[in-house]
Amino acid sequence: MPRFIKKRSKKAGLAPGTLVHIGDHKTEKIKITLIDYDEVQLQEKELKKIEESFPLKEKKSVTWINIDGIYQLDVIEKLGKHFGIHPLIQEDIVNTGQRPKAEDFDDYVYIVLKMLYQDKDKLQVKSEQISLIIGKNFLISFQEVEGDVFSSVRDRLRKGKGRIRKMGCDYLTYALMDAIVDNYFIILETIGEKIEALEEELLENPTPQTLQTIHAIKREMIFFRKQVWPIREIISGIIKFDSPLINESIDIYFKDIHDHTIQVIDTIESFRDLLSSMVDIYLSTISNKMNEVMKVLTIIATIFIPLTFVAGIYGMNFKYMPELEWQWGYPLAWLIFVAITISMICYFKRKSWL
Amino acid sequence: MPRFIKKRSKKAGLAPGTLVHIGDHKTEKIKITLIDYDEVQLQEKELKKIEESFPLKEKKSVTWINIDGIYQLDVIEKLGKHFGIHPLIQEDIVNTGQRPKAEDFDDYVYIVLKMLYQDKDKLQVKSEQISLIIGKNFLISFQEVEGDVFSSVRDRLRKGKGRIRKMGCDYLTYALMDAIVDNYFIILETIGEKIEALEEELLENPTPQTLQTIHAIKREMIFFRKQVWPIREIISGIIKFDSPLINESIDIYFKDIHDHTIQVIDTIESFRDLLSSMVDIYLSTISNKMNEVMKVLTIIATIFIPLTFVAGIYGMNFKYMPELEWQWGYPLAWLIFVAITISMICYFKRKSWL
Amino acid sequence: MPRFIKKRSKKAGLAPGTLVHIGDHKTEKIKITLIDYDEVQLQEKELKKIEESFPLKEKKSVTWINIDGIYQLDVIEKLGKHFGIHPLIQEDIVNTGQRPKAEDFDDYVYIVLKMLYQDKDKLQVKSEQISLIIGKNFLISFQEVEGDVFSSVRDRLRKGKGRIRKMGCDYLTYALMDAIVDNYFIILETIGEKIEALEEELLENPTPQTLQTIHAIKREMIFFRKQVWPIREIISGIIKFDSPLINESIDIYFKDIHDHTIQVIDTIESFRDLLSSMVDIYLSTISNKMNEVMKVLTIIATIFIPLTFVAGIYGMNFKYMPELEWQWGYPLAWLIFVAITISMICYFKRKSWL
Amino acid sequence: MPRFIKKRSKKAGLAPGTLVHIGDHKTEKIKITLIDYDEVQLQEKELKKIEESFPLKEKKSVTWINIDGIYQLDVIEKLGKHFGIHPLIQEDIVNTGQRPKAEDFDDYVYIVLKMLYQDKDKLQVKSEQISLIIGKNFLISFQEVEGDVFSSVRDRLRKGKGRIRKMGCDYLTYALMDAIVDNYFIILETIGEKIEALEEELLENPTPQTLQTIHAIKREMIFFRKQVWPIREIISGIIKFDSPLINESIDIYFKDIHDHTIQVIDTIESFRDLLSSMVDIYLSTISNKMNEVMKVLTIIATIFIPLTFVAGIYGMNFKYMPELEWQWGYPLAWLIFVAITISMICYFKRKSWL
Amino acid sequence: MPRFIKKRSKKAGLAPGTLVHIGDHKTEKIKITLIDYDEVQLQEKELKKIEESFPLKEKKSVTWINIDGIYQLDVIEKLGKHFGIHPLIQEDIVNTGQRPKAEDFDDYVYIVLKMLYQDKDKLQVKSEQISLIIGKNFLISFQEVEGDVFSSVRDRLRKGKGRIRKMGCDYLTYALMDAIVDNYFIILETIGEKIEALEEELLENPTPQTLQTIHAIKREMIFFRKQVWPIREIISGIIKFDSPLINESIDIYFKDIHDHTIQVIDTIESFRDLLSSMVDIYLSTISNKMNEVMKVLTIIATIFIPLTFVAGIYGMNFKYMPELEWQWGYPLAWLIFVAITISMICYFKRKSWL
Repeated sequence: MPRFIKKRSKKAGLAPGTLVHIGDHKTEKIKITLIDYDEVQLQEKELKKIEESFPLKEKKSVTWINIDGIYQLDVIEKLGKHFGIHPLIQEDIVNTGQRPKAEDFDDYVYIVLKMLYQDKDKLQVKSEQISLIIGKNFLISFQEVEGDVFSSVRDRLRKGKGRIRKMGCDYLTYALMDAIVDNYFIILETIGEKIEALEEELLENPTPQTLQTIHAIKREMIFFRKQVWPIREIISGIIKFDSPLINESIDIYFKDIHDHTIQVIDTIESFRDLLSSMVDIYLSTISNKMNEVMKVLTIIATIFIPLTFVAGIYGMNFKYMPELEWQWGYPLAWLIFVAITISMICYFKRKSWL
Repeated sequence: MPRFIKKRSKKAGLAPGTLVHIGDHKTEKIKITLIDYDEVQLQEKELKKIEESFPLKEKKSVTWINIDGIYQLDVIEKLGKHFGIHPLIQEDIVNTGQRPKAEDFDDYVYIVLKMLYQDKDKLQVKSEQISLIIGKNFLISFQEVEGDVFSSVRDRLRKGKGRIRKMGCDYLTYALMDAIVDNYFIILETIGEKIEALEEELLENPTPQTLQTIHAIKREMIFFRKQVWPIREIISGIIKFDSPLINESIDIYFKDIHDHTIQVIDTIESFRDLLSSMVDIYLSTISNKMNEVMKVLTIIATIFIPLTFVAGIYGMNFKYMPELEWQWGYPLAWLIFVAITISMICYFKRKSWL
Repeated sequence: MPRFIKKRSKKAGLAPGTLVHIGDHKTEKIKITLIDYDEVQLQEKELKKIEESFPLKEKKSVTWINIDGIYQLDVIEKLGKHFGIHPLIQEDIVNTGQRPKAEDFDDYVYIVLKMLYQDKDKLQVKSEQISLIIGKNFLISFQEVEGDVFSSVRDRLRKGKGRIRKMGCDYLTYALMDAIVDNYFIILETIGEKIEALEEELLENPTPQTLQTIHAIKREMIFFRKQVWPIREIISGIIKFDSPLINESIDIYFKDIHDHTIQVIDTIESFRDLLSSMVDIYLSTISNKMNEVMKVLTIIATIFIPLTFVAGIYGMNFKYMPELEWQWGYPLAWLIFVAITISMICYFKRKSWL
Repeated sequence: MPRFIKKRSKKAGLAPGTLVHIGDHKTEKIKITLIDYDEVQLQEKELKKIEESFPLKEKKSVTWINIDGIYQLDVIEKLGKHFGIHPLIQEDIVNTGQRPKAEDFDDYVYIVLKMLYQDKDKLQVKSEQISLIIGKNFLISFQEVEGDVFSSVRDRLRKGKGRIRKMGCDYLTYALMDAIVDNYFIILETIGEKIEALEEELLENPTPQTLQTIHAIKREMIFFRKQVWPIREIISGIIKFDSPLINESIDIYFKDIHDHTIQVIDTIESFRDLLSSMVDIYLSTISNKMNEVMKVLTIIATIFIPLTFVAGIYGMNFKYMPELEWQWGYPLAWLIFVAITISMICYFKRKSWL
Repeated sequence: MPRFIKKRSKKAGLAPGTLVHIGDHKTEKIKITLIDYDEVQLQEKELKKIEESFPLKEKKSVTWINIDGIYQLDVIEKLGKHFGIHPLIQEDIVNTGQRPKAEDFDDYVYIVLKMLYQDKDKLQVKSEQISLIIGKNFLISFQEVEGDVFSSVRDRLRKGKGRIRKMGCDYLTYALMDAIVDNYFIILETIGEKIEALEEELLENPTPQTLQTIHAIKREMIFFRKQVWPIREIISGIIKFDSPLINESIDIYFKDIHDHTIQVIDTIESFRDLLSSMVDIYLSTISNKMNEVMKVLTIIATIFIPLTFVAGIYGMNFKYMPELEWQWGYPLAWLIFVAITISMICYFKRKSWL
């Protein structure tokens, strides 16, 4: 549940714009990497101090500053001051409990998204907040910890594959967002396979564990949906922004992400519908099992209880019980036993319990 | 489940516009057929190389190039280059996990739809992606495998039936989409009949298999709806496009498809409502059966357990038990047995369990 | 289920605009009746040939041509040609699986609606498709079979009651639609009464049949709603059409139908909510009954099983059992029996099972 | 259920605008009361004939004509003629099955609402239709029977409290509608208290009656909501009407009613959510009880059935049974009894059934 | 439930604008505190009479008058008169059953919100109504009782931290609203932790108490949502108001609250989904337990009932029973006992009940 709501208690009561780190991850050290490129050259290095990146603000080439770790508030503050980022946005960057959103300021655009990972054993979907500041010729990305889904983007940048090196910051923004959304599909695939396996388990041998797994996936779907749902609005927002920072020719790419997002949401909804229907099957399977147990009990009891009674009668010690004296009394008793048993079995056959 | 989400993992991380085939079907060879027609003549042939179709781009007559099999990426690429198709669209064509959509470019319109088939044994609805590129006087359709629902359109073209030969590419587009949507109705009919049969089975003799079939149909409905739902927006989009490629006089035909699509969706929703209600009936039927089993057990046990106790009393070996010595002791015991039985039966009658 | 989706299979693959009759009803012969009226006179006759009606197209008086039976495709075709009806609309008229809709062409308005009947024994709602073509001074109505809900409209026309004879085709359209919608209320009343009866049955003596009736009514509600829901849009459409064929002064009348339609839909929704709640009650009643059965069994078994054990003890044949020799052994045994019984009853009282 | 849909059957087939009384209540005699006031004077009387009110139409002072009983159609007709009310509206006034709505005509505004009462024993919400005709300086209200929630408005008029005497017809309209909506809150309070009581009953001692009460309240909520829901649109309509009859300065008062209505609807929805959750609890409570019954049965049976078997063994009459001859045979049997009992109890303890 | 709807009965029937206190809390005495500040100075004091605050209305500095306790209607009335507050708004202030809303008058803005507290033992969310009157250079806040979530705002004012002292009334409004919404997160955190604990309890050892807690949290979520939902509209309203009292530069701050509110609502919805899924698990767990109880009973009964019958046979007292005379009769009986037991156990193993 802590995943559904981040601990904000320590922030409550502070002035808006006060930077407070809200989140779980604390890396040892924040790591700043810089990639500066244009069509002809690419320069990549790790910065020791954030100040080293400041001169690049004025350069014509595209500069991508990636910051892993957001708990060193002074770094964010220095960056914010130099690049003119609104204090409320600085606050949003360090508070990892943000709802995905995009905001257009005059000289930069702020986008916050969730990068999702999957803990395969527990089926748990984990999220990491990514903040993007898109300026005229720079893009700053903030991540909670090292490790991301951007390696393919970096590869394409380095090798100059595709059009990425010829385009500006807006295309880089698209490339990063696309990598994030593409990653959602991979998680959905894993979950889809798990659901398929569950469906078979349900038909063959459902256990209480099965229902708990269904519940666990349901919970992940609720969590997943909460992270993805707002992205639709983000893209619509970016397309409508009419900001000079996002070139109109890029709109078709953003629409592509939009389509993918809707597909992710559609699939999540389909999964939820499927899971609901699977709960019905599970519950009815339990009832069917109980039914079968009851039938066995009833058949055994219904046959033997009357027999035992008959045996009980002839176990009575009355002085005057004529049957006891008969020579054929005992075989007769057996006849009664057999007759009762057969008639009961016929009855059960007619009820189709046997 | 792989039906709900296509394996995109191998695509993740590639540059946008990189062609990667995503899908299950791999035909031995792709098959290119070309139909070129105007009001007076029709020419139909199978092409060996895609390049053979290039000269037709400039011809006045309507040219329909149909490509079965989309795994040969170089064919798509050559086509795309010659006909000026955006790389992202090329990517969409070969990625069979698309959500149905329509996009208007200046010199062509791109439409992607799902053709649905039904695997009758398993009640499973299968989908095949159809991409349409509508140009000034050509239409290119891409299918995953050979075999489609367009034979009637081809027939009408060959025989010059109806107005199809007198009209342009837009009407051909309509004719193809209409054939696809008409096919949805046929699948719905089969499912409707299956539901009707299930309803009767439910009232007469429900088995656990019944519920599994209900679940299976539910799952198909979820899948079906996911494929059909976006078509409403597609048609609205096409009508609004204001593209010179889609003549306004064709709008009424597209509206007709729109109406059909809404009817398909309505019917899917009705089916889902019906299936939900059927699950209720199934669950209550199980409960009722259990109830009946319990009643039989209770009646037998409630009658015979006291009787057995009475028999047990007179089976005791106490030295001083006056009843045992009585001459009428044994008949009296029988009297007690009968009395208990009758009073129990009266009790059950009053409870209306018998 | 065939009610939820009409057999369209035979149509699939034909050219749009090809007339194919889709529907269940086949009357022996189609019946064409004509009512021609203005403020001063009314003429009513049955036509043998549809051509007889053609001259009236130019007359100033209002002409209402009613056609019962739509399977004679040539009649529809001739009519369509003479009155200039679009082939797609002709197709819609003979295909009884239409979704209710209204369409505005320049010189006529096309409205298709569902007339509902109720099969009282089976609670089944049956539908018949009514198509209306409203021209400048003529109205053509198409019905599947003879027999309709328009007798009151005809009466008012004949007797010149109300304003109907003074008004034009648009008012006649309203009068017919109003008659259809009014009829929905009558069906809802019957269903409302059935639900009321069911509710009482549910509280007094629910049987599995009760649930099946609930399910049957639910299904009818799903069917009913599907027919009525689109009428809201139809009316909004007609009011917005801005067609010279529908006088603005009639709008208030159409709004009246709109209000009635919303009321019908509201009532259907209320009925569905009620029925869902009734399913809950039914299921809990079954559970309660089972509970009661179990209690009876448990009480009997719990009292007599220990007693039988005690009796069993003193039925043992050990040589050395001192109790058997005691003079008061047997009365003591009875004391034990009574003590066990009383303590058990106290226990059940405390559990409030008795 | 007759509450959910009024008997309209007798109306079906009549010309629109034909007055037919549809409703349950028939007062002996209709009662017409008239209050005529301006800032300085107030005159109140009961009219014998509706014609007595006609001269007041031209007076400058505000005239409120209240008519209790709407089954005397000729009175409505005369009024309608004199005050120029559209026949369809007259029809709406006498047909008590109206959906709440507001309509703006040029020289009057028509509002129809539902006044709700509560039958406290049966928890049933009953509705009475109130129609308001607001003219330039007159307001005519129609009620089904005598007795209403307007006594406070009359009081304020008589005593000249508040601003009511200084304002026009529009303010009087507001005052009447406000009184009606305020009354909804009182009903909600009663229901809220009943739900609170039910919740406690549910936790302490739920009976089948509890569920029936939950169902009954649910039904009332469905009914209530149907009456209140449309009022939101009514108010929005009135504010937008732009009619000279409704002064803009009154809008803030109507917005106040709007807020109250939304609050009523919110509360109804909250109640429905609560009731749904309560059904879950009820059903699980039944299951829990059954569970407990089953446990008692199982414990008793599982302990005593093996014991009885053991006793049965030594009740057998075999000639050669060494144990029977042993001196310590009988005590040994008791040892076995005790051992079985203790081990069973341990087993149940481990299962935490005891 | 009294929380869901405030007792309005005593208000019903009064003239609108009549002040009637509706609410639970009655403080001994109302407490008026005043904070007057600008960029350079801050003055804070407690007022004895409300009149003391009147001169400040004309001052340039920002004046925040906070009133704890709203049951002294004369104070509200005097304030209302001096600051020109509409009587309907005065009525809203003292009626604590308001739905959150914002209204723009020309010379002041009225906002009403709910401050939420949590009663930790009972998991109950309690609400207190906060009304804000924002004027040109004054803000008046009304609370039901002493004690609020504004201490951090007061601190920032006193210490001149952040920009709060440099800004006007609109920023103060934002700061107060932000404090209220921030507090919602703290409550959600507590509830989230409780849900997490419940989930574990559900998997390990669910009791009827567990379901009651789920129901209790559900109820709180329904209550919570009702309080928070309208805030979205409030903020949208404030941003659109276009009032000179709310500077446009503050909009970004209000948008921040808007985002937070949506996050709160999202989380509430996620919690509700989770809780629904948890009810399913709970119900299936009960069924599973019952299943296990039934199995134990069935196994014991099915083994021992036939055994007892066999023992019963040889306890019969027939004169001629050859087995009883056999030397190996008794050991043979034991053989039968063992054979039956083993075959039964095999049967259960095959059914995998053991």
